[in-house]
Amino acid sequence: MSKPNEQGLSRRDLLGSGLTVATVAGSGGLLAGGAGSLALSGTPAKASEQEEAEQKTHVPPGKLDEYYGFWSGGHSGELRILGLPSMRELIRIPVFNRCSATGWGITNESLEILSEGLTPESREYLASLGQKTFHNGDLHHPRPSYTDGAYDGRYVFVNDKANSRIARIRLDVMKCDKILQIPNAHSIHGLRLQRYPRTGYVFCNGENRVPVPNVGRYLDEPKKWNSVFSAIDGDTMQVAWQVIVSGNLDNNDGDYQGKYVASTCYNAEEGITVAEMMSSDKDHIVVFNIKAIEDAVKAGKYQEINGVKVVDGRKTSDLNVTRYIPVANSPHGCNAAPDGKHLVINGKLSPTVTIFAWDKFDDLFAGKIKGEETIVGNLEVGLGPLHTTFDGRGNCYTSLFLDSQVVKWNLEDAVRAYKGEKVNPIRQKIDVHYQIGHVNASQAETKEADGKWAVALCKFSKDRFLNVGPLKPENDQLIDISGDKMVLVHDGPTFAEPHDATILHASKLKPVEIWKRDDPLFEFARSWAKKDGITLEADNKVIRDGDKVRVYMTSSAPSYGVPQFKVRKGDEVTVFVTNVDDVVDLTHGFTIVDYGIAMEVAPQATASVTFKANRVGVHYYYCQWFCHALHMEMLGQMLVEEAGA
Amino acid sequence: MSKPNEQGLSRRDLLGSGLTVATVAGSGGLLAGGAGSLALSGTPAKASEQEEAEQKTHVPPGKLDEYYGFWSGGHSGELRILGLPSMRELIRIPVFNRCSATGWGITNESLEILSEGLTPESREYLASLGQKTFHNGDLHHPRPSYTDGAYDGRYVFVNDKANSRIARIRLDVMKCDKILQIPNAHSIHGLRLQRYPRTGYVFCNGENRVPVPNVGRYLDEPKKWNSVFSAIDGDTMQVAWQVIVSGNLDNNDGDYQGKYVASTCYNAEEGITVAEMMSSDKDHIVVFNIKAIEDAVKAGKYQEINGVKVVDGRKTSDLNVTRYIPVANSPHGCNAAPDGKHLVINGKLSPTVTIFAWDKFDDLFAGKIKGEETIVGNLEVGLGPLHTTFDGRGNCYTSLFLDSQVVKWNLEDAVRAYKGEKVNPIRQKIDVHYQIGHVNASQAETKEADGKWAVALCKFSKDRFLNVGPLKPENDQLIDISGDKMVLVHDGPTFAEPHDATILHASKLKPVEIWKRDDPLFEFARSWAKKDGITLEADNKVIRDGDKVRVYMTSSAPSYGVPQFKVRKGDEVTVFVTNVDDVVDLTHGFTIVDYGIAMEVAPQATASVTFKANRVGVHYYYCQWFCHALHMEMLGQMLVEEAGA
Repeated sequence: MSKPNEQGLSRRDLLGSGLTVATVAGSGGLLAGGAGSLALSGTPAKASEQEEAEQKTHVPPGKLDEYYGFWSGGHSGELRILGLPSMRELIRIPVFNRCSATGWGITNESLEILSEGLTPESREYLASLGQKTFHNGDLHHPRPSYTDGAYDGRYVFVNDKANSRIARIRLDVMKCDKILQIPNAHSIHGLRLQRYPRTGYVFCNGENRVPVPNVGRYLDEPKKWNSVFSAIDGDTMQVAWQVIVSGNLDNNDGDYQGKYVASTCYNAEEGITVAEMMSSDKDHIVVFNIKAIEDAVKAGKYQEINGVKVVDGRKTSDLNVTRYIPVANSPHGCNAAPDGKHLVINGKLSPTVTIFAWDKFDDLFAGKIKGEETIVGNLEVGLGPLHTTFDGRGNCYTSLFLDSQVVKWNLEDAVRAYKGEKVNPIRQKIDVHYQIGHVNASQAETKEADGKWAVALCKFSKDRFLNVGPLKPENDQLIDISGDKMVLVHDGPTFAEPHDATILHASKLKPVEIWKRDDPLFEFARSWAKKDGITLEADNKVIRDGDKVRVYMTSSAPSYGVPQFKVRKGDEVTVFVTNVDDVVDLTHGFTIVDYGIAMEVAPQATASVTFKANRVGVHYYYCQWFCHALHMEMLGQMLVEEAGA
Repeated sequence: MSKPNEQGLSRRDLLGSGLTVATVAGSGGLLAGGAGSLALSGTPAKASEQEEAEQKTHVPPGKLDEYYGFWSGGHSGELRILGLPSMRELIRIPVFNRCSATGWGITNESLEILSEGLTPESREYLASLGQKTFHNGDLHHPRPSYTDGAYDGRYVFVNDKANSRIARIRLDVMKCDKILQIPNAHSIHGLRLQRYPRTGYVFCNGENRVPVPNVGRYLDEPKKWNSVFSAIDGDTMQVAWQVIVSGNLDNNDGDYQGKYVASTCYNAEEGITVAEMMSSDKDHIVVFNIKAIEDAVKAGKYQEINGVKVVDGRKTSDLNVTRYIPVANSPHGCNAAPDGKHLVINGKLSPTVTIFAWDKFDDLFAGKIKGEETIVGNLEVGLGPLHTTFDGRGNCYTSLFLDSQVVKWNLEDAVRAYKGEKVNPIRQKIDVHYQIGHVNASQAETKEADGKWAVALCKFSKDRFLNVGPLKPENDQLIDISGDKMVLVHDGPTFAEPHDATILHASKLKPVEIWKRDDPLFEFARSWAKKDGITLEADNKVIRDGDKVRVYMTSSAPSYGVPQFKVRKGDEVTVFVTNVDDVVDLTHGFTIVDYGIAMEVAPQATASVTFKANRVGVHYYYCQWFCHALHMEMLGQMLVEEAGA
């Protein structure tokens, strides 16, 4: 691997038509680490403009941010909420990860969510390892739910690339309530939502091609492998239908009319190695006709695989549910403009963005025009265009991975230029630091795009922060896009690895401060309490049931309702803790020392944990969530005696 | 539980001598949630001073912070590094938690660190659950290593209250390299380090009293339970010796001469319930005489329990290794002043701080004076004093949990006042938001205390940030202490739950940017490579060894050295990935889809993972750490055929 400035070819050379696989794989010419040195120079703001814009990020003590940002936690597996413009992380929401603080992956409630939606094959596999669920995930794309093209504050949906899942987060309590592993599809990547009339469908891409079903056959016949596009019912979190496609599936987006979804494909060659995947200079996007797919399903034109209705949308299919439109090699981002009319495809290895008009897809599916005729713009923007966002004033902002820049360009001018008019759609370029992936602007994925802030999610931070050793943070930079010029105002270090972020105005969300006692997430505890004749909010009782012990306790600062209980070694113990404190932020916890047990119990919540009392002795339980002046004294003892005692 | 402003008694009344258990447990009078309403009013800075101080926290894009902050992750189990004064989180270091992003708890290297230091009882318990280690922790106190009272940049040591462990983090690579579970002690809380001549000893408190050893006896005889104080050799990470004490152990600190360590005790009553723990109006601190303990060990005056030399330091002992000095009920923080002369004990339920002179402990152990005569100050500072920090200019800053304030006071004046002089040591009080626990200032735990910044780690944030549902962030507030007046300049939301933070000047640390190939953390891979005749940095090979398969591969953007391999269902597969990219920040990853496998491989590092190939089919592996323009194409396939195939 060559080091920065040691490369023999410029990156522009590499992106020419002479690009060879040997070059790509061998020289490091496309190496991220070497990119900065060759970046086009940006046009920075004047010092006074710069200072003034930076001032806007300052949120004084006690003042609130104006926007919520839902931040991908990447392979940390979690979702994060940031406040903008301060770029402060307000909370982490455990989803695909295991969380020591909240007990996510330890409590009965979380384990049910983490396991109930798994495929039978995964259950069997995990059971062979003694696990109930996966402990890792790779969360890329947080997408808030819509009603008529605007955020409605119900849910955020996210994907897991690592273990082929999606998850739903409730925005009233900011907790994950459903996780679904998608059968037949492998490695869920692109995820976007039905915008109209509402969400509705969650559209997700199985990125990699595998045998469908993936049960051990066709291991050596990759031509028989396929990628699968899935529509999930966001209300029931069940698969509505799937479409099997040619090529693979990267990112996707849908229109504002509820008719079409498009997806990029970087491996139309259906290759296995990097060389094979690069062998053609064309890939494609695939357009899904939602109504046509629903009609095919209704008409029984599907194959049922693993209990899911799978429609054939490959190039060879005659079902008229998909269209394949060639674009330059290895497209990546797929972004619907808030004007409701345009779709921007980002070239990645091509220095271009390609603009499609959604309404032309009617004629395409009707056979009146060819795929290429749905293109209304094709603009050279710079090296490595990955994603595009929007300001609602007609401007687009495209991330350039290789140039480490964001380029601002005008959509209408790009369409005019494509028609042959002499206009320059490019407005400005600024440097970002370094190797930007996603870029997203406030409210930009809705019809209410407001063009105030954009975030540049940079994959490398290198020298931008105090050195913290070989593993560096990412760098999420904030850009003021409210004026004519973009101004980069803040460097935001983040732990691995924000892939994408969605920014909502604070007025869009109204979370509750305290749990409601009838919340469905407490159903497990309620059902046991009913059997045992227990009132969760009042009773403190230890119930023995053979070698099972159920401990019901309240927590009220600074004490647990049950200050001590005794069990026998080997008992299966379930502890239910109901936090009866009715005060905002008065969360309690329950940790058993040397037992690996910990959980969070927010005000008016119930949480439970089941474990085997497999070690004898005195084991304290204590409140790990600071609650009171006598917090240290909020503890009790589990006494575990020998089984024969 | 009463709500704010509904309480019938003032908190000051409750703290009088008439404090009864019924009041404490029942009325909610000490409730954190109700504290703000009665706080003494602070003396805020003028608007212009305020603005000017806030400006200092602004670190423009591309500029570096001046300080590293090592931040407890509390029950998240991780350690965090923040930059100050920007208060940005620069990186997370997994320690007691499980980390989806880095594979901590998944890789062979991390599992060895997480399991090798466990007690035999814990190993047996975890094995019965099919686990190799605990998956949670409760990390309170990050303490950087010393040479002669100043930070030397070698290590940070941390405690785990949840599973009775300590851990060591290497500051050259910012990774945990050793974890030790402390035998005999239960629930490690207070942790501080030997300052002179160097670290040396790691002193840690077993907070809770249990039978020693805790093997199932004395379950119903709490008078036979004990707390244990431990000295760990920080170089070998083995227990040097332990001291069994009367009462329990909360926080501790040592002097600058290497002679004494003191610890607070909030339960001298040796009670089990909150009522019993509150029954006396006095608790104590215990002073450990290090030399006397070492001499006792040398002289064979110890009992060996679980392989550890345990010295009797109870009140009834005649070994002259400890002294018990009565203080007001329920003391908490224990803080050595950077003057090298004084120790401040924080009253918690008493509105006072008590000042001790380290040099008087010589006479105390010599029997020349009584414990009370080592006290040189006793100052009323406000309600709920928990911890004190220092500016190196003679001033102290004490956190007041109940008042939700920080109080600045002068140490010399407090000593003079105790002697009867008419001086007022109190300099200023400011409100913090809300319910502050630890307070710590830049370099304050060293002889190089520089009095620039202090952090107020507040347990409740309530209304200070956009509402994120029932579970709120903590609020780590930054205070400018460089002038005569404290100025609160920043609200910092943090995920559960920073207990403590230590702030070092950036000049104190020189981490490496890229791993050295001979790092001891890669020893597992090196030893297998030697057996298999493999050069990790060059060879790409799949070796079958019965039903074990070892896959050696390099990673170099954008490809893996082994693009595909085939195994049989049930094989035990070990994958070694060596990242041969030699570029700063060019981290790769290795994730196997639907297999729950993920790990980080930073530049020039090796990581490995061992798993059972228990599900058939085509399973992609991919790089989850963005590395290159063709990052998406950096993937391969593990083909798993039926065992009989």
